[in-house]
Amino acid sequence: MNKSYAIGVDLGATNLRVGVVGSDGKIEAQAAVPVGSVKSADSIAALIGEHVWVMQEQVSLPIAGCGCGIPGIVDHERGIVYSSPNFPQWKDVEILKLLKKEIQIPVIIDNDANMFALAELMYGAGRGHKNLIVLTLGSGIGGGIVIDGKIFHGDRGFAGEVGHIVVEPDGVPCGCGSMGCLEQYAASRAFVHLVKRLPKKEKDSILDRVGQDPERLTALFVADIANEGDPAAKELWRFFGRYLGIGIASLINTLGITTIIIGGGIARSWDLFIDATRAEIVSRTYKKNAENLKLLKTSLGEFTGIVGAASAALSPPL
Amino acid sequence: MNKSYAIGVDLGATNLRVGVVGSDGKIEAQAAVPVGSVKSADSIAALIGEHVWVMQEQVSLPIAGCGCGIPGIVDHERGIVYSSPNFPQWKDVEILKLLKKEIQIPVIIDNDANMFALAELMYGAGRGHKNLIVLTLGSGIGGGIVIDGKIFHGDRGFAGEVGHIVVEPDGVPCGCGSMGCLEQYAASRAFVHLVKRLPKKEKDSILDRVGQDPERLTALFVADIANEGDPAAKELWRFFGRYLGIGIASLINTLGITTIIIGGGIARSWDLFIDATRAEIVSRTYKKNAENLKLLKTSLGEFTGIVGAASAALSPPL
Repeated sequence: MNKSYAIGVDLGATNLRVGVVGSDGKIEAQAAVPVGSVKSADSIAALIGEHVWVMQEQVSLPIAGCGCGIPGIVDHERGIVYSSPNFPQWKDVEILKLLKKEIQIPVIIDNDANMFALAELMYGAGRGHKNLIVLTLGSGIGGGIVIDGKIFHGDRGFAGEVGHIVVEPDGVPCGCGSMGCLEQYAASRAFVHLVKRLPKKEKDSILDRVGQDPERLTALFVADIANEGDPAAKELWRFFGRYLGIGIASLINTLGITTIIIGGGIARSWDLFIDATRAEIVSRTYKKNAENLKLLKTSLGEFTGIVGAASAALSPPL
Repeated sequence: MNKSYAIGVDLGATNLRVGVVGSDGKIEAQAAVPVGSVKSADSIAALIGEHVWVMQEQVSLPIAGCGCGIPGIVDHERGIVYSSPNFPQWKDVEILKLLKKEIQIPVIIDNDANMFALAELMYGAGRGHKNLIVLTLGSGIGGGIVIDGKIFHGDRGFAGEVGHIVVEPDGVPCGCGSMGCLEQYAASRAFVHLVKRLPKKEKDSILDRVGQDPERLTALFVADIANEGDPAAKELWRFFGRYLGIGIASLINTLGITTIIIGGGIARSWDLFIDATRAEIVSRTYKKNAENLKLLKTSLGEFTGIVGAASAALSPPL
């Protein structure tokens, strides 16, 4: 088969990443541009259109199509974004229609974590697996579920919202309206809540470093001081890892899928949480699942999203 | 297409149900026989073989094959039961091989809740849905997940163990080795634990009715006194319903599937728990999922399992 090319788009809260990707998964050209402050669906579609055009001009390659990964609840079939944490004003936006006005090649959309999962499946840690689950740990938790080699979308595109598995029945209120969702305990805001679980002395010591303001306990900060050896910070990462393990155990018991790939910015702190995560999964799943567990860190770089989005565009039927 | 026939077998802890079922889902003949006390895999296979033969003799119909629903972790492809709560001595039993020695027509096996789900999909409350989730509430919680019109088995047959979704991270120890599993809070032993949550006065009043022995708070007993109007018993069923709703909300957020069918003996107490379950699901899932929620009671009778098992045997490839 001849090599073909597509443009992959990964829309983030702050950056838009665009790239030309071959059917071998190789990135031929790429760019990251700031999203800016105007976040209406029209202006975002125009921004994407502009940079897709720039990419097309930049490479002299035949481009078969364009895939766009969008954060939020994406109905890939109807081309609608029902809601998006990064673009709170988007409600039932017909983004595909807007994109088609801006882009002169075939366009498809999907949830960004689904695009990420597709990249891992085709070119990354998930190669050779027909079933896998991807979690992206960042400001929230994204999820992608691959079943029999294909992204599973569920009814109307709502599959994979694994950040909203309930891990504490009467826990912290979540932006989704529920309480005790996994993403309150194993994403960037986790430490704001988890710090309350520390014994008083450890709690005081870590809060002293942020002027007693728990809101300043970002994942980056807690990782930095944990890596410097701070015992309270290390303990917080173990709490984080434990909750992540509880959520993943529920996923494994539900789906019987034992290949789990973790990405997103917080995956960089892998060594700080993964032992606690693994121990929790092993203690909460059947022996055979625990034996077969593959708990893997994303093997692709920060451009995983565009590789997945482009590969979705290259997959039939385009 | 001509009508074809298969034998469906549903192996329970106390009874073995066997029936001849047509490709229209109609039961032509059926029987329930006690399993007895000898529960080795060999003797169970012999018992099944005997009653399959009895059924074949009883009806003068061409029988295409036999499907057996077995409780526990069933690897339908390899024909192995890894473990079964009702047959604790079974470990990695090659039950299909044993059954094939006893039964002279093509035989297949699967988890009993998967067979149940297949019956609901083809002839019951799930007709016309391509994705659905079935939960059977009894001594434990069985689960079957239908994706794109087919049972999803996961890796090695472990999909659908929804009774082991974690609903209380530090909750009651479960037979599976984990803690706080859904089936400790929304199956037959739930009330033994849930009674502790009642205010002292209500707790004492309900425990007085069972000689202060919480182990005697069976689902049947608590249903009986709730139906007589006992307020503490009604409250216990609301606790039960709430936990069931938490578990189902995690399932809906993970899978994006909004057709949920509930069966098993405890489904008979539907009116006692379902309002609390529905309220919990609605408060914990996305609005569009809540709007599309179909929370359905099994529409087939106690022979659902044999209908599903027979229909699995009639589905290609047999």
